[in-house]
This record gives sequence, structure tokens and C-alpha cells, in this order.
Amino acid sequence: MKEKYEVAIIGGGPAGVSAGIYAGRLRMKTILVTKNFSGQVGIKAVDIENYPGFESISGPDLAKRFENQIKKQGIDIENGEVSKISKLGDDFSLTLKSGKEIETMSVIMTTGADPRPLKIPGEKEFVGRGVTYCALCDGPVFADKSVAIIGGGNNGFETVIFLSKIVKDMHLLEFGDTVNADATNQELVARLDNIKIITGAMIKEIHGDKFVNSITYQDRKTGEEKKLAVSGVFVEIGYIPATYYAKGLVEFNDKGEVMVDRKTYQTNVAGIFSAGDLNEGSFKQIVIAAGEGASALLSAHEYLKTKRR
Amino acid sequence: MKEKYEVAIIGGGPAGVSAGIYAGRLRMKTILVTKNFSGQVGIKAVDIENYPGFESISGPDLAKRFENQIKKQGIDIENGEVSKISKLGDDFSLTLKSGKEIETMSVIMTTGADPRPLKIPGEKEFVGRGVTYCALCDGPVFADKSVAIIGGGNNGFETVIFLSKIVKDMHLLEFGDTVNADATNQELVARLDNIKIITGAMIKEIHGDKFVNSITYQDRKTGEEKKLAVSGVFVEIGYIPATYYAKGLVEFNDKGEVMVDRKTYQTNVAGIFSAGDLNEGSFKQIVIAAGEGASALLSAHEYLKTKRR
Repeated sequence: MKEKYEVAIIGGGPAGVSAGIYAGRLRMKTILVTKNFSGQVGIKAVDIENYPGFESISGPDLAKRFENQIKKQGIDIENGEVSKISKLGDDFSLTLKSGKEIETMSVIMTTGADPRPLKIPGEKEFVGRGVTYCALCDGPVFADKSVAIIGGGNNGFETVIFLSKIVKDMHLLEFGDTVNADATNQELVARLDNIKIITGAMIKEIHGDKFVNSITYQDRKTGEEKKLAVSGVFVEIGYIPATYYAKGLVEFNDKGEVMVDRKTYQTNVAGIFSAGDLNEGSFKQIVIAAGEGASALLSAHEYLKTKRR
Repeated sequence: MKEKYEVAIIGGGPAGVSAGIYAGRLRMKTILVTKNFSGQVGIKAVDIENYPGFESISGPDLAKRFENQIKKQGIDIENGEVSKISKLGDDFSLTLKSGKEIETMSVIMTTGADPRPLKIPGEKEFVGRGVTYCALCDGPVFADKSVAIIGGGNNGFETVIFLSKIVKDMHLLEFGDTVNADATNQELVARLDNIKIITGAMIKEIHGDKFVNSITYQDRKTGEEKKLAVSGVFVEIGYIPATYYAKGLVEFNDKGEVMVDRKTYQTNVAGIFSAGDLNEGSFKQIVIAAGEGASALLSAHEYLKTKRR
């Protein structure tokens, strides 16, 4: 007979690792399924300075610490990717891409959200060398420099407001003919004197040598190609929550984010919990994801008590 | 004219430090008021093994890391204690015990909750040497030992359930004539074979040499004094949220915990936020408090945007 887990954690980023640490300490029969232990932490090229406990640590170093710690918790770790969660009476079955099936009484989704990329030449090449998807994390690196912010929604405008006290000057580029940030954000940005907004701009390429030095865009009205000298490019065109494996089962908002009860982190499905960047309303930060991972696991532990009655 | 802060953070534990790190990085005009930077972290005598990033670290060491990190954020730090928050139009005034007044546009309460002590001889002396107030943190230290759990409410019963897979055997002692944990907890404990429940027990003294070795209690019916040989004493008789300075302004539940919107961590008073152990519904864990501190600060930052319109 196939063994049944008390909890299956999907994902090995800060939320998954934190949930796994608590599961191990609670001696729950646990499996954690992940492709790797880096998540967005491990690929960060700029040092992390906003995780309490470390004044400054590289992304790969923090990811390695998480990995070493989770491997000491006495839980099963499966190297793989979940393609589907199915209900199995009161329990759940996880189907992995490998075809393997895992039975579990509860599930914690912690697969995060990936920043939506521009998909243009130069973007991948300069990640961590001028191209960034996290202003809060990386902003201070661009003190007194000229930068471009891509995206005229709230994320883009909030990045502008945040950077306004840090950088020398900014261009915000928006593909559409108008920006669509909310009124407050637009009013606040209107008061700044170190920002220029360019609408109808299609970004073509990011250039640089060792680091980014410029960006090319096409004026969509005139067709003209223009170049801006910048040291940094903040890409703020949204996130893609990694939740495909729960489609048709768990409830999402129109951005594809998971809707949870923010006290228990339980989804609309009893026994399925969700923690971290993939959740509606969660600020996308390492320490916040880690906190939610611990809360979701402790809630799952409470939930399982009622199942054992 | 007195200078006005954008945000005042009250407390220097994990929630306050985390909020302060984010405030500094957002370049908000910030003051953090605290007596010290230890909170419950700094006084923990058993190593911390459930904070992601550290396989094992002493409480004082983690507290020192927090303190060093917050002092690098370019925020004002005031050594003191807040005795009262008052409304001042849309803003707030904090009165310190020293008499000093601080004006601020927003407040983040992070003063935590202290475990309620037994106040009996031997308790203080053996903290960290057998006496503990956090089973989740310290439970594994008592593997295969005999322990006593004090308190017959849900916290006490949940401690028993958690410890049942770890320790050799347990006595749960309750002052009242009956226990008052909920039915599920009572049913789960009834199935365990390594626990004995004693009601009507008034704890008199904790004894030991280098570490705890026994506990004395009085049987309240017969008046007889009895002694139990135990290596650990888990005190689970509740928490006292440290919120006296907000009485009459902020809304509390009947345990004295702060009621917050769990997405923004805002209290019933616009501009006052609360994060960590003092909140209703927050599991009392370091990483959870740190995550809430970051979330509350980011929400305060959003709130201030609307004030600047």
C-alpha cells in the first residue's frame, strides 16, 4: 500500500523551506517537492540586505543556507515538479511530471510568482548587472544613477516613488498610449522633478558592456527608434504566479494569485494551504514569504488535528 | 518646531527590527523606540533552530545580529519606553516614560506578548535550564525525558500533543478542578499513553541542581504536598500582550490581543499598525513576527501615500 503523508509542501523557496522546518520539528510525516532550493532567492545577483539576521548576504549563499537547514529536518525531499493536484476523498494526490503519484492529507503551495520578463535582447544577459525585477531589493545599488522603469501600472509608479529619493533621474516607459497607475500614484509622481514619462514606447533592446549602459525603444506613433543612456532597468510589468498545477481546484483572482484566508492561509479547498508570493495581497518579500510558510504549516497542523478525531 | 516622523516603530524584537529595516530602505523618516533589542529572542537560553537561515543560533547571538542590522538603516533609535499613544488630528503623539513626546504620522506596534509566569520559587532561576515557555522552540531538547506541563487550557494540551512524540512521559498540572481545553484537544490527548493529568494542583516550587530535577505541588483538595521528578517544566498559562500604551485607543480582544486587518495589519485606528506576538491570530514565532513587521511597514508606507495627496 502506498504510504500517505500528513503534509506535502510544493516548492523550495523561503516559504517552502520555512514550512518544512516547522513540519520537521512537529514530527509530521512530510514530503517537500521542488526542482531546486533557490527560488528567486538563489538567482539574485545583487546582495540581500533586507532579510532580518543578515546585514548583507548573496542570494546563492542564503539559498544554500536554506537548503542545508531543510535537509536536517528529517522530512522526505523529492526532486521534481508537481503537474497536478487532485482530490482523493478528503485527501489529495499529487501527480509529478515524472509520472510519480504522492498521497497526502494536506498540501501547502509555496511555488511563488515569477516577474514577467520583457523577452527582449539583452534582458537575460544583464540580470543582476543593471536589469532588476525588485526595486525594494536592489534600488539602493543605483544611488545617484540614471535609470529606466518599464511599466506604467501601479508597480512601475511605486518603483518611481521609491527610487525618487535614491537615483539621480528616471525615465518611465509604458507600451500603451496612457499609463494606468491609480490616481494617488499618478499625483505623487507628478510632484517629482527627476522623472520623465514616455508612453507608446516599445522596448527593443538593453545594451551594455560589463553593466547596462543604455536602452533602445521604438516610439510607436512615429516608428522612430530612440536610445536612452541608463545604468539600470527596472522591469515592472507584472508577475506570473506559478500555480498551474492547482487550476480547476483552487480559487484565483484575475491576476492568477491564490485567494487565501489571511489568518490560516487556507485556500477555498479544506486541506490546501498557500504561502508566499503566489498569494493575493502578500507583499513579495523573502521574510514575508518565510513567515507565511510557517503560519500555513502551523494551520495545516491544526487542520490535521480535526481530521484525526 | 518639533520634527514629525513618518513612522514610529514601538518595540525592538523581530517584528520591530524587520519593520525598521524596510523603513530605512524606503528612506522614510523613522524612529524606533525600544528598551532593548532582545525581546524574547535575546533571553532564550536554548538555541533557536526554527528561524530560516540559521541551523542553530543562540538567542543572544540572533538578537545581536538584529541590533547590528537595524543600526545600519539610518533611522533614529530612541532608548526608552512608550507609556501612551494619543491622537493629534490625523497624526499621533507618543509619550515616553521619560516625559519626552514624539510626533508621528503613523505608528507600528511591535511590543509582543510575554508568557504569563507562575511566580513561584525556582522559576526564574531555572529559565533555560529546564523551565521553558515555548514548547515549539525548546521541545526537542527534552527528548526521552520526563516533563511537566503547567496549564490545562488549549496551549497546555497542544504542548502535550506536540511533546508526545518527543519526550518519555508527561504530567499535565492544572490549578482548577477541570481542564478547559477544547474537545478535539482533549480527545487527542486521551489517546496518548505517556501522559497523566492532575487537576486541582497548585504549583509550589521548582527544584534542581544545575538543571531542573523536580517540582512540588499541593493537592488543593487534600492539602497534601507532592513531588514529581521531572527534567523540564513547560509553563503554558497564557500570554500578556504588552499593549498598555494603546489602551482606550486601539481595539483588543478579550485576551488583550490587538485586532488587525490581517492583510494590512492596520488596527481599528487609521495609521496605527500592529505586528507580531501581540496580534490576535498570530502564531507566536520569530519568523512570523518578522514577516508581519515587514508587511505592516509596507502597509504604513501605502497609507502615507494617501496622506500626502
